[in-house]
Amino acid sequence: MPSVEIVAVGTELLLGQLVDTNTPFIASELARAGIDVRATQSVGDNRERIAAAVRTSLARAQGVVMTGGLGPTIDDLTREAVCDALDVGTKLYEPALLQMEAVFARFGRPMRANNRKQAELPTGSLPLDNPRGTAPGFVAFASDGKFVACMPGVPREMKPMLREQVVPFLRERFGARETIVTRVLHTIGLGESEIDHRIADLFGSYENPKIALLAHDFRADVKIMAKAPTADEADAMIAPLQAEIVRRLEDGVFGYDADTPASAILNLMRSQQRRLAVAESCTGGRIAAALTSVAGSSQSFVGAVVAYDNAVKISQLGVDAGTLQRNGAVSDDVAREMARGARARLGANVALATTGVAGPDGGTAEKPVGLVLFALDDGTENSRVWNFRLEGDREAIQQRATVMALNLLWRYAKGQEP
Amino acid sequence: MPSVEIVAVGTELLLGQLVDTNTPFIASELARAGIDVRATQSVGDNRERIAAAVRTSLARAQGVVMTGGLGPTIDDLTREAVCDALDVGTKLYEPALLQMEAVFARFGRPMRANNRKQAELPTGSLPLDNPRGTAPGFVAFASDGKFVACMPGVPREMKPMLREQVVPFLRERFGARETIVTRVLHTIGLGESEIDHRIADLFGSYENPKIALLAHDFRADVKIMAKAPTADEADAMIAPLQAEIVRRLEDGVFGYDADTPASAILNLMRSQQRRLAVAESCTGGRIAAALTSVAGSSQSFVGAVVAYDNAVKISQLGVDAGTLQRNGAVSDDVAREMARGARARLGANVALATTGVAGPDGGTAEKPVGLVLFALDDGTENSRVWNFRLEGDREAIQQRATVMALNLLWRYAKGQEP
Repeated sequence: MPSVEIVAVGTELLLGQLVDTNTPFIASELARAGIDVRATQSVGDNRERIAAAVRTSLARAQGVVMTGGLGPTIDDLTREAVCDALDVGTKLYEPALLQMEAVFARFGRPMRANNRKQAELPTGSLPLDNPRGTAPGFVAFASDGKFVACMPGVPREMKPMLREQVVPFLRERFGARETIVTRVLHTIGLGESEIDHRIADLFGSYENPKIALLAHDFRADVKIMAKAPTADEADAMIAPLQAEIVRRLEDGVFGYDADTPASAILNLMRSQQRRLAVAESCTGGRIAAALTSVAGSSQSFVGAVVAYDNAVKISQLGVDAGTLQRNGAVSDDVAREMARGARARLGANVALATTGVAGPDGGTAEKPVGLVLFALDDGTENSRVWNFRLEGDREAIQQRATVMALNLLWRYAKGQEP
Repeated sequence: MPSVEIVAVGTELLLGQLVDTNTPFIASELARAGIDVRATQSVGDNRERIAAAVRTSLARAQGVVMTGGLGPTIDDLTREAVCDALDVGTKLYEPALLQMEAVFARFGRPMRANNRKQAELPTGSLPLDNPRGTAPGFVAFASDGKFVACMPGVPREMKPMLREQVVPFLRERFGARETIVTRVLHTIGLGESEIDHRIADLFGSYENPKIALLAHDFRADVKIMAKAPTADEADAMIAPLQAEIVRRLEDGVFGYDADTPASAILNLMRSQQRRLAVAESCTGGRIAAALTSVAGSSQSFVGAVVAYDNAVKISQLGVDAGTLQRNGAVSDDVAREMARGARARLGANVALATTGVAGPDGGTAEKPVGLVLFALDDGTENSRVWNFRLEGDREAIQQRATVMALNLLWRYAKGQEP
């Protein structure tokens, strides 16, 4: 069975200064294309060691997919090392050079001599375009026909190159293979152990499709993976299992695959012709940032006030100075007035407000670090305040609070009791 | 020079379903202990392939540190594979068995027959205690004296085993070794190739301390790593090189190590007793989120208005309806009025505003996707507007615009012409 190996290049990977997310991304795209990954390696910016790693991987597999070390600096040695491993020279690829010149012109930056070496690719290579950056990729070939596909290490350059050029090359090279289709069910507001409790019996009973539970960013996803000759057949295998999982987790599944909590909320708000505003204190703009990540968000998201200073809570949101003085900024009444003010002043139908103690300083016995209040105001008696004690450091508290705010908004828009 | 390799075991790593955070954790602990990591591998739950990976790493380095595959299931094959690679048998380690029984008793769970095999370690091994789980680790030895240290894959079991048992073993094994100290110089507003151009000659001339250039999040960092018997000696080696690099990149280095662009800006603003406000359209809250990530940001950051809807630009920032109608939201005048309004209404001394076309829709020939305007207002004739054409998808444009805004704010606070 044909297989490839992945080799990631960069000394920072060996010092543990960077978590390698490129390798899992490449691995998962290859799995989707039905291409087996035999093993992976990472190696530092050292010509001999890179070449040795390439030789090791080529001895074990039919080809190697590499990322990193294609830049213009003296530390970027992948091109040279691949030439060493394959025992070929380099050649200037004019089209690659022209494309680099075009990218530099578009960025309005001068192209230097050290950039030119990026267009010198192993002789006999298939060049890979990199419209998002200056380092072209390439697929180089050994005399026995095995290949080494090299991509930049910058994720936003590597990912489209992999999907648009390397995966099609591999598919053709290995012939039509099995496809792995993955469906991700995104949940919010359900704990990992709660989900596990509700669907544990399904984990063991299925090998294909296979189920996995992934917790991340203070939420959990359920992943269903099916392997079949075609995507349609894999979809058909996924459907009944998906239906069963959704039935059991109905109160928590907000979307699938590319959906985000924000896109789910804005879709509901748009269909209800509601306009949403946000007043953020301790979340500091994170809820607005999540909502505006969604293309077309302006249709139902009007804006936010990040009211960090109390004076801003008063001037921009109309919070009463007396309320602030009597109860403090982290109080039910202030949260309520922030939400009411945001709704009225930003011209929205619904507004959510956050106020809390993100830390590390500013906590008291009564209002400890991690205390976060949320208020929702839609001008009716449904308006409410919640308070939670969140765990973690400043960043974790801000992020958890953002996910909680999105959870409350989603449940509100669904008409579910949050 | 003695070095080790890291081998992580688990098929999920090859399917990209899990980002391997164990390898960078191990790598960074070893770097701190002055132990060189030559390369890393990951391999699936396959006895032959694990054994082959161990042999490959042992051929290249003095030892191997492994994680994963020590559990009780049929998929856990690290013990057997290490025996194959080292050509040794297994032996029941009574103390390991007793400890496992104690852990099971403490967890109140029955110990099954398949758990028993976890106490069968390669003959001649040094067992490693695992008080937090059921799988003991071990260090096995080859006939030539090289070693393979195996730890479980569960991070909360692996981490203390590494710190408390494996690192001390390695330190002793390799004798008193050196420490690696890393200094990171963070830059903003300088391109990677510009930095390379200015310091390229330093890359080649230094092996220790060593320099690396890392581009990420639309910025670049220069990393200086020094290896020495003590941290003080490493610091002393770093100092002159750091001074030289800072001299050459003076217009771009905003901070060191844990500093962020936001913390650098807020430090300057605080020392100048200035108060900052932000008005965000296309960046949607990201600038505020970056600023409020900094503990104590409330001292110099008053807040932001995320003015996504034009009505919010008018009501919250006092942008003139006529200006909006005549020039459109993405225009110099609107940017200028947003900044002026934010400064005045939020009670700040300085305000920065963003407005642009983040896409994917909404672009025109005159105002294409990626056009972003920035205005800075401090109530003096220093107030200015800049416009840039940014590359990438919606997310990249929003993130690049955020970094540019931070760059402009930092240069302003430094008194540098942006």
